[in-house]
Amino acid sequence: MKKIWPVILSGGSGTRLWPLSRTRRPKQMLNLGQDISMIAATVARASGANFANPVIVAGDTHEALVKEALAGTALQALILEPTARNTAPAIALAAHMIAESAPDDLMLVMPSDHLIADEAAFRAAVASAAPLAEDGWLVTFGIEPDRPETGYGYIEAAEALSERGMRVAKFHEKPALEKAEAYVKAGGYYWNAGIFLMRAQTYLDALGANAADIAEDAAAAWSGANTTGGVIRPDAERFSACASQSIDYAVMEPADRKAVVPVSMGWSDIGGFEALHAVLPQDADGNAVIGDAMVEDCRNTLVWAEGTLAAAVGLDDIVLVATEDAVVALPRTRAQEVKKIVERLKADARRETEDPPKPR
Amino acid sequence: MKKIWPVILSGGSGTRLWPLSRTRRPKQMLNLGQDISMIAATVARASGANFANPVIVAGDTHEALVKEALAGTALQALILEPTARNTAPAIALAAHMIAESAPDDLMLVMPSDHLIADEAAFRAAVASAAPLAEDGWLVTFGIEPDRPETGYGYIEAAEALSERGMRVAKFHEKPALEKAEAYVKAGGYYWNAGIFLMRAQTYLDALGANAADIAEDAAAAWSGANTTGGVIRPDAERFSACASQSIDYAVMEPADRKAVVPVSMGWSDIGGFEALHAVLPQDADGNAVIGDAMVEDCRNTLVWAEGTLAAAVGLDDIVLVATEDAVVALPRTRAQEVKKIVERLKADARRETEDPPKPR
Repeated sequence: MKKIWPVILSGGSGTRLWPLSRTRRPKQMLNLGQDISMIAATVARASGANFANPVIVAGDTHEALVKEALAGTALQALILEPTARNTAPAIALAAHMIAESAPDDLMLVMPSDHLIADEAAFRAAVASAAPLAEDGWLVTFGIEPDRPETGYGYIEAAEALSERGMRVAKFHEKPALEKAEAYVKAGGYYWNAGIFLMRAQTYLDALGANAADIAEDAAAAWSGANTTGGVIRPDAERFSACASQSIDYAVMEPADRKAVVPVSMGWSDIGGFEALHAVLPQDADGNAVIGDAMVEDCRNTLVWAEGTLAAAVGLDDIVLVATEDAVVALPRTRAQEVKKIVERLKADARRETEDPPKPR
Repeated sequence: MKKIWPVILSGGSGTRLWPLSRTRRPKQMLNLGQDISMIAATVARASGANFANPVIVAGDTHEALVKEALAGTALQALILEPTARNTAPAIALAAHMIAESAPDDLMLVMPSDHLIADEAAFRAAVASAAPLAEDGWLVTFGIEPDRPETGYGYIEAAEALSERGMRVAKFHEKPALEKAEAYVKAGGYYWNAGIFLMRAQTYLDALGANAADIAEDAAAAWSGANTTGGVIRPDAERFSACASQSIDYAVMEPADRKAVVPVSMGWSDIGGFEALHAVLPQDADGNAVIGDAMVEDCRNTLVWAEGTLAAAVGLDDIVLVATEDAVVALPRTRAQEVKKIVERLKADARRETEDPPKPR
């Protein structure tokens, strides 16, 4: 088996978990129900004998944050994007690096801000995907759905290609509830978790075939990169010229040889406070009470206190998140609407959307 | 007409409006929907041609707070209680002072933490009560009830004594809802607002007749008082010996010559967040949004932010109060239960119940 190069994408705007997450403290820098930050956990779960040191691709404004979060971890490289251009160009930079250094190896593309409870299941899925990837398939990992979630895209599987791998019939956008229910009922549909395994050259070839402009601009940005002490800065002008497209849209959907390996591994993208509540330890009444927080006669609440004291009394299904400089309260099932507050604050150029709170 | 000496009682434990109120920042020191603190507003509404400068009776731990809140106001005296002994002993100290200085004048006893929207109505009621008080009656002011409130005591009126004054038939404790409804339906029942007008000597005589021990200890505490620059410190040992009793229990209930003057003056004791919500300006959806706060799709909420930013989304009938170091959220109709949180915090000796928050 070839070495696997973890490529960890550290983007994120810090909107969905505001005020915990901020522009200058994105979700992957937080400890969300773990002892370590999400990005450090992502690095840790893809380490060991079969793995190369990780390649991190991050926004250049997050350089210090990434270094701090991964202090003590040997990195293969830290690639800094001069501007955010979504995942297709970001992965292209890492693919160029790996294709040059170790053309036979594989790259494992992972978001830095997902939770995976069962790391053994994750590594087993990666191992079983490796032969397909070596054989030139673009492999994605499909999460076995346990509910008709409308917040994720779905991967429809076709015939088997290996013991666990199947050809991808089609990627489906985030569905309406009825469609999601039909997918779950039918079986053979999996959540798209944004985790991919492939040879670097396979990716670059597929990008060139399906999004030639991005491929060209990313290649030029890579050629013009400036490397200092393990930190790689691609050419800003050429990188910024890349169209802002996801790997799903630019590569996976149009590609021919794409496979899915289903996996059940306690995965969550913690895409909002409802998802965060679901993965946190809860009391007998379903309350997740974190930090200097307390509840009295509450059920199914999330009360999170950081740098301040927070208390809830007599509330059901409410999220209360308090930091040193900002507090938000909303129904758990409408927790995505915290975005509306962030939008209003950004329109007012409020620093609370940008800067992390100060420790108490 | 004799001069009227305002006697303003500044006690309070800072529990019901926590975390806005604290032990070291009681309710009367807050601006609650006004431009000035409650205690300063109390002083202001009992000032003018007919009034002497106010006598303030406060806990000695609040000396600096009172002086700061009333800076620039000429006081007759600031009497500092060495320990809290409820209202009967506190009023006795002021009564001794006034009986010695101006035996023919009247004293107007007022809590320092009530809101009175219609000050003209208040002063008219005081003026119409004055002849009864000069004639030796203990006069209380009864608030015309606009709802069957179970949180207040009721004063039952008997026959008329003057144009507006009536003899008090009986004081009734805080009633159950059914009884409160019957009071309101029957008419002739008024809320006991804890505001009284009488000659100082009338009070001292009634105290002596009905609570001789308190009268004796308070008199001794007064005799042994130490006065420096307008600040009067009664003898601590004798004052602490006083039974802790309210004027209602020790004097008004057992007394013979007691009268009530009904008044409708936009009175609220702001006894909790539900009452605070009711007196604050509200948007078209009934939200009171104070400080650096915002609401999105909310109805009938109170969102109060001090030293931090607070936002609520999609909530109905919720109180969210956020200060620099503590946050509480609870249903508006259960807002009294914030006490449960304060009790838990006091049991843990948490400073957030004691010290005011720091300005941002």
